[in-house]
Amino acid sequence: MHGSHDFFTRVSPYRFETGCLWLLDQRRLPLEEIWIECRRAGETASAIRSLAVRGAPLIGVAAALGLAAAAHHALASEPALLDETVLNGMEILASARPTAVNLPAAMNRMRDVWAASSGLSASKRTAQLEHAALSMAEEDRNACAKIGFHGARFLETLLPDPQADPVHFLTHCNAGALATAGIGTALGIIRAVASSRPVAVFADETRPFFQGARLTAWELLSDGLPVTVLPDVAAASIIASGRVAAAIVGADRIAANGDTANKTGTYPLALVCHHHDVPFLVAAPTTTLDLSLASGAGIPIEMRDGKEVLEIPNPGEAEATRISHPDARALYPAFDVTPATFITAIVTERGVAHPPFRDDLLRFRDEAVSGRTS
Amino acid sequence: MHGSHDFFTRVSPYRFETGCLWLLDQRRLPLEEIWIECRRAGETASAIRSLAVRGAPLIGVAAALGLAAAAHHALASEPALLDETVLNGMEILASARPTAVNLPAAMNRMRDVWAASSGLSASKRTAQLEHAALSMAEEDRNACAKIGFHGARFLETLLPDPQADPVHFLTHCNAGALATAGIGTALGIIRAVASSRPVAVFADETRPFFQGARLTAWELLSDGLPVTVLPDVAAASIIASGRVAAAIVGADRIAANGDTANKTGTYPLALVCHHHDVPFLVAAPTTTLDLSLASGAGIPIEMRDGKEVLEIPNPGEAEATRISHPDARALYPAFDVTPATFITAIVTERGVAHPPFRDDLLRFRDEAVSGRTS
Repeated sequence: MHGSHDFFTRVSPYRFETGCLWLLDQRRLPLEEIWIECRRAGETASAIRSLAVRGAPLIGVAAALGLAAAAHHALASEPALLDETVLNGMEILASARPTAVNLPAAMNRMRDVWAASSGLSASKRTAQLEHAALSMAEEDRNACAKIGFHGARFLETLLPDPQADPVHFLTHCNAGALATAGIGTALGIIRAVASSRPVAVFADETRPFFQGARLTAWELLSDGLPVTVLPDVAAASIIASGRVAAAIVGADRIAANGDTANKTGTYPLALVCHHHDVPFLVAAPTTTLDLSLASGAGIPIEMRDGKEVLEIPNPGEAEATRISHPDARALYPAFDVTPATFITAIVTERGVAHPPFRDDLLRFRDEAVSGRTS
Repeated sequence: MHGSHDFFTRVSPYRFETGCLWLLDQRRLPLEEIWIECRRAGETASAIRSLAVRGAPLIGVAAALGLAAAAHHALASEPALLDETVLNGMEILASARPTAVNLPAAMNRMRDVWAASSGLSASKRTAQLEHAALSMAEEDRNACAKIGFHGARFLETLLPDPQADPVHFLTHCNAGALATAGIGTALGIIRAVASSRPVAVFADETRPFFQGARLTAWELLSDGLPVTVLPDVAAASIIASGRVAAAIVGADRIAANGDTANKTGTYPLALVCHHHDVPFLVAAPTTTLDLSLASGAGIPIEMRDGKEVLEIPNPGEAEATRISHPDARALYPAFDVTPATFITAIVTERGVAHPPFRDDLLRFRDEAVSGRTS
C-alpha cells in the first residue's frame, strides 16, 4: 500500500460555490447526470428527503453546505431575514430524514458556529458558516481516506496472500464516493485494498432504490473496478459457496455498544456472514457514532412510503411501472439494526474498533472531538 | 376448520382442452391476463423456460398436459410422426428447467404410460397419455388441499389462540394457486388457516422476477386475503420485531435429509427465522421429493441470465429499463438450498414430516407410490 491518502476516485456527488450547492441527482444515475441547484435550505432538504442525495456522511455535509448557501443567498437578497433564515434552515435540514445521526449532528455544529459568531457582522457570520461547512466536507474527505487506510491494514491480516485471482468483497447499498465527500467508507476500504492487489466486488442491488445496482456499480466501474450485481437475497448462497473474503458496509448510526443502523438488509447479511465465518466490517466516520444511545433499540428507523416498493420509476418518463395489485400495501423500513455481536470490526478514521466496541468507540469519539477543538 | 377439501381460490393458471393447453402468462400479471396457446411440446417448453409459467408443481403438470396436447396435435396432423413427437417432446420438456424435480418426474411417468401402451392403437395411446396428464393435475389439486389441511392442523399447535387480530404469515416467492393445479402449497396452508381465522400475509417481493409483489399479492387479494409486500431483505427486521407467526414457503426439490431447494432468498429467510425462533415451514407435494439425493449438495441450481437482474421489463413496452452501468455483470442463481436444520416441518399431502425428516419422507414417498399404483 503506497501511503494512506492517495486512494483514488473520479466520482464526486456535489459541487459548491459561495451561495450555491450543486447536488448530483442520484435518482437518475446511471442513466444521466443531472445536477440540482440548491440556494435555499428547503431545496437542499427536499433533495435529501427525495433521495436525490443520500448516504449518511454526505447528507450531513450537504446539509451544512446547503445551509451555508442559504445564508449567502439571504445575505444578498434579504439581509434582515438572515438570522431567521439560518435558524429555520437548521430546523428543516436537521429533520429532513430521521435515521442518520450525521444530519442533526451537522446542524448542531452549525448552530454552535452561528451562536458563537453572534457579535460579528452579518457577512462575517455568513463567511464563518461557510468555513465550517467546508471544513466538515474536508474532514469527511480525510476521514474516508483514513478509513480506507485502517480498513485495508486490518484486512491484510484476514485475507489470503495476494495472488493472480482478485479478492472478492461483498457490499450492500452504496457507502462510496456517492455517499461521502471522499472515496467512501465501505468502498473507501475497497479502493484502498485495490491500490495494492486485484479486487472484485459483489454489489447487492439493494431494493427498492437500487443503490447497489445503480450507484455502487456506476462509481466502482467509473474507477475501473469490476462489479457483479446480485439480487439482495442471492448474497446468502454466494457467501455459503465460499467466494466472499469479507462483507463491508457503511452505517447510518452506531450506538455505544456497536449496534449499527444501516440500509435495510444489512442485518440478514451480517447474520449470514456470522453463520459462515465471513468477516463483516462496518465502515463509518466518527460523525456517525451516537454514543448517547446505549444500544440500537433507541435508533429511530425511517419508514418510507410503500409506493417506493410497489412502483419502479422509469427515468425520464412520467409514469412509474406498478408491479403489484392495486390493493397491495407495502412496508418499507429504510434501515435495520445489526446487533454488534454479528460485527467483526467497526472501521473509523481514528482506527479499528473491536468487540465489545464500547471502549474503542468512546475513545475514538473523544479523540475526534478534541482533535476538532484543538 | 370445516372439512379438508373445500378451501378456496378463484385463481387458476391453466386451461386444458383436448389438443390444446392454455397457460396464463405470469410475466404480464398483475397488469393484464394474457393466455398462451400451446399445441406443440416446444411451445410449452418455451413457456416454462421463459417463466410465463412457473412453480415446481405447476411446471410438472403443465409439461404433462403440454405433452398430451402435442400428442393429439400430431395424431390429427402427422400421425406417422406420433411416436417421435411424443418421445422428443418428453426430452424437451424434461430439460426445460433443471432445478425442480417435478419436471423430469412428470416426464418419467408419461414415459412409463407411453411405453406400457405400445401395443394399442395410436388414438388409444394418445387418450391414455391425456388421461395420465389429467390425473396428475387432479392429484396435484388434491395434494394442495391435503397440504392445506395438514399444514393448518400442524400450525394450530403453534399459533396463539384466535383473536380479533389476524395472524401474520410471511412467504417468499409464489407457492400458490399460480404455482400448482390447486390452492397452492405454502399459500394452500395459508388459505386453509384463513378458513377458520383472520389471516394477513407478508409477501417478500422476490427479486428479480417479483413473484411475490406480482403473483402472490394478486392471487391472495383476488381471494380477499390482505397482503403487505416487503423488499426481500426487509423480512429480517419484520421477523425480528415479532410480528410474524410463521414463515411458509414452497419447494423445487427436497433431498432425503430434508435439505430444500427453493427460490433464491429462502435460505437467508430460514436462517433469520431460526435465529428468532419463528417456525419455518416448507410445503410441497411428494412429487417434489428427490430421495435419490442424500442431501441438498446434489441439487442442480439453475443460473439464469444476469440480464434478468439488470433490466426491469416494462409490461406492454418493447424496451426494458436498464438499472445498472452497461459494464456491470450480474449473478442470478434462481434457487438456493436451505439446510434441513433450519426447517421446522415439511408439509406434504401425506402428512407432516418432522426433523430429522428422512424416515417421514421415505414413508410418504412409499405411500404416494403405492397409492398411485394401487
